[in-house]
Amino acid sequence: MEKTIFERIIEGELPASKIYEDADVLAILDITPINKGHALVIPKQRFNNIHDLPDPLFSKLMLTAKHIAMALKKIGMADGINILMNNEAAAGPHVTNHAHIHVIPRLLNDGYAVWEGRNLYSPHEKEVVAEKIIAAL
Amino acid sequence: MEKTIFERIIEGELPASKIYEDADVLAILDITPINKGHALVIPKQRFNNIHDLPDPLFSKLMLTAKHIAMALKKIGMADGINILMNNEAAAGPHVTNHAHIHVIPRLLNDGYAVWEGRNLYSPHEKEVVAEKIIAAL
Repeated sequence: MEKTIFERIIEGELPASKIYEDADVLAILDITPINKGHALVIPKQRFNNIHDLPDPLFSKLMLTAKHIAMALKKIGMADGINILMNNEAAAGPHVTNHAHIHVIPRLLNDGYAVWEGRNLYSPHEKEVVAEKIIAAL
Repeated sequence: MEKTIFERIIEGELPASKIYEDADVLAILDITPINKGHALVIPKQRFNNIHDLPDPLFSKLMLTAKHIAMALKKIGMADGINILMNNEAAAGPHVTNHAHIHVIPRLLNDGYAVWEGRNLYSPHEKEVVAEKIIAAL
């Protein structure tokens, strides 16, 4: 199986600005950031996305993202933070074959809008959806 | 201190379609979803955002989000999933005084674009930023 871009970074074939590394996790600066300091938290072992990541590793990745978020605020590089994980092509990731979490520093009035929700449910449909999710949990 | 909208839901003052609840965590369907099944994972105890949430509770919230993501896929309501947490007003949350995590089901070609990154760093600036973050971690 061909290496993912993150495996090539982890193995040192491609350069990256590393900000955190341990046995399971690598964190680097995104080369095309939303704002400066935008970081990616990556499992060293390849998993495609949230659906196949083991819970303990997912938890460790998210805690690493949290600590980077706090560091970005501490050094004054973030007025706010988005934690974002895009899973599978429909959700918009550029890399679909190796899970990663974005830590995105946001600046007041930087112009990036979050999606507006809408009233999509017909009457009682929300309760039907809720029951389906509960049954699948 | 005035109750947050989520405290009012947790205390039963406002209705919500609950999909998961335990001693620490409540998950509900968003009333203005991006797509149907869009869920919010909320700590029952009020914390403003990622910066003041204790690590174990943050981890528990994120694992709940993961399990909901997997349930949404299992029942065919998601071709992809965004996990999104917006922290502080600059990052775009509608509710800024009570932390919450979005689990957003995405459908192929639903038209929601992720932000495009850019080349924002001057030469060597990325390494300087990386060093600052490493020192603050």
